[in-house]
Amino acid sequence: MNAQVKPFTLRLDTRKGKVDMTHGSGGRAMAQLIQELFLKHFDNELLRQANDQASFDVHAGRMVMSVDGHVISPLFFPGGDIGSLAVHGTINDVAMSGARPTYLSAGFILEEGFPLADLERIVISMSRAANEAGVPVVTGDTKVVEKGKGDGVFITTTGIGVVPQGIDISGDRAVPGDLIIVSGSMGDHGVTIMSSRENLEFETSITSDSAALHTLVEQMVAVAPDIHSLRDPTRGGLATTLNELAQQSQVGMQLSEAEIPVKPAVASACELLGLDPLYVANEGKLICICSEADAERLLPVMRAHPLGGESAVIGRVIEDPHHFVQMETLFGGSRVVDWLTGEQLPRIC
Amino acid sequence: MNAQVKPFTLRLDTRKGKVDMTHGSGGRAMAQLIQELFLKHFDNELLRQANDQASFDVHAGRMVMSVDGHVISPLFFPGGDIGSLAVHGTINDVAMSGARPTYLSAGFILEEGFPLADLERIVISMSRAANEAGVPVVTGDTKVVEKGKGDGVFITTTGIGVVPQGIDISGDRAVPGDLIIVSGSMGDHGVTIMSSRENLEFETSITSDSAALHTLVEQMVAVAPDIHSLRDPTRGGLATTLNELAQQSQVGMQLSEAEIPVKPAVASACELLGLDPLYVANEGKLICICSEADAERLLPVMRAHPLGGESAVIGRVIEDPHHFVQMETLFGGSRVVDWLTGEQLPRIC
Repeated sequence: MNAQVKPFTLRLDTRKGKVDMTHGSGGRAMAQLIQELFLKHFDNELLRQANDQASFDVHAGRMVMSVDGHVISPLFFPGGDIGSLAVHGTINDVAMSGARPTYLSAGFILEEGFPLADLERIVISMSRAANEAGVPVVTGDTKVVEKGKGDGVFITTTGIGVVPQGIDISGDRAVPGDLIIVSGSMGDHGVTIMSSRENLEFETSITSDSAALHTLVEQMVAVAPDIHSLRDPTRGGLATTLNELAQQSQVGMQLSEAEIPVKPAVASACELLGLDPLYVANEGKLICICSEADAERLLPVMRAHPLGGESAVIGRVIEDPHHFVQMETLFGGSRVVDWLTGEQLPRIC
Repeated sequence: MNAQVKPFTLRLDTRKGKVDMTHGSGGRAMAQLIQELFLKHFDNELLRQANDQASFDVHAGRMVMSVDGHVISPLFFPGGDIGSLAVHGTINDVAMSGARPTYLSAGFILEEGFPLADLERIVISMSRAANEAGVPVVTGDTKVVEKGKGDGVFITTTGIGVVPQGIDISGDRAVPGDLIIVSGSMGDHGVTIMSSRENLEFETSITSDSAALHTLVEQMVAVAPDIHSLRDPTRGGLATTLNELAQQSQVGMQLSEAEIPVKPAVASACELLGLDPLYVANEGKLICICSEADAERLLPVMRAHPLGGESAVIGRVIEDPHHFVQMETLFGGSRVVDWLTGEQLPRIC
């Protein structure tokens, strides 16, 4: 007889406990961490199957799959934390194909010594974000690395989703004459993170825009199934994302700086921090490229959605053998908006 | 005009270059890393879509999804490396449901200063493992953390797969009277890793058993579609995995130590290292629980497969309200084979 075969006589100490190497060993301590922390908060039927894989039914059709690693620092920030971000980020990558996201997987890499209280707070936030979005985390994995070989917690999420019939949204479908729409103000997320790091406080509080955009996309494809391209301007910001799209579609773009929404507080913070809001990451905004007729259908729908209130046409796709993104500035001049070169904002997501 | 908008005038230096923070920025350096390293080696049509998600057609039916983080140290070891392991590990988790694995996602977390030559070696190995298995990496993500906040490279892979009709393999289906089969010798992977770390060399060279088991599983379900449970004994080894299954199915298990295959070189190394091979991780072996009639059908099929040559019945499922795993030892005694408690082998996968 062995007392240790009884299930967990001592509860996991989520108040003062810390992650230790046994939590990644595959043994009893890991089973306890999974049961009393992950399963408890991510409670759903598929995860409860407790196999090494989740199993579910699918209909015939087109699916998408997308992965995003999250290494953001700090882990907690105004408007979210690494947990909610890991859910939103991957849901958005799936949704940018026009797909309805269905399931998420989550791989955690924990650093020895990380407070279990912080881990629980992150898992609760992640679970809340997944529930609110209706996209459950159905399978997971936990690894632990020695102190000094990680940084608290890294979370890699993969999402899958189902593309409605007749939808063909892709980065290579922008054509001259298309309009370029953004769903709201640029730079909120990146500026929030940089301000948190620098311990800056601004008069107007700035918060991350981290949000799941799939319900916005769902309404958009319902009125305009022929949207050409959708992409969320995360790392590298609007400027880099538009350059990617211009390259993929072999077109140029002409923007109007006056039309690009940037919150006054974000603009001031950018000045102070020496950042250009066009290169700063967003986590709850999308770029939509579509025909002029579709733009007319889309704008009212986008503006009526809680996450699209400030949607605006910011420019137009043009012919350009160089695939440049150009912008008419506030002062009436013109400049090339290049790719981000170098590292503007490390570990922003 | 800006010279930097031209695509990559300088090639990525995969001989002497190192990962730096710009490779995770979302800008031009990251685009170059993706193009000249990841896309080059993981070459496949889905990845070439170059959207933030891969898109593919599926048939109606049952699917599975599984995730595995890989933090193994050292990164390179006899019989494989973190790249091949990240492919095999996730393919196996998918296959243990009886599913045919179809696609993988891969999230890389790189440490600043990591040699690009090592990264390329890992990506080539990963790509080769994926090609050999016929399960492509269709979408990926790269993040970079500062030196001292990671450990070279961590890889989190998620796999999806399709379950053939009529298959219902799950950890909760073992019933008294079932036989317990293993597909080969226990402990090879873990002992190889520990030997590499300790710089031990054994007369008989021991190598990791890291391998993709999905073709073995495919042949198994073809002759015995009613297999009850399959699981790969990774972290925590055979002992911990059997305890998980006993708990899930609410049964006991009776093993015979004499029937458990352990290579003599592995047994010697375990003695030297103070390890019990029953608790040591495997990365190319499976446990199968099935009726006696199915075992008779399965054994010849398993033994004829290159990865199942040493398949053996090691015990039987019994009734036991305590859900113990018990073993008749080589000396005729009996002992309880408990869960792994504590940390036997950190960062074994």
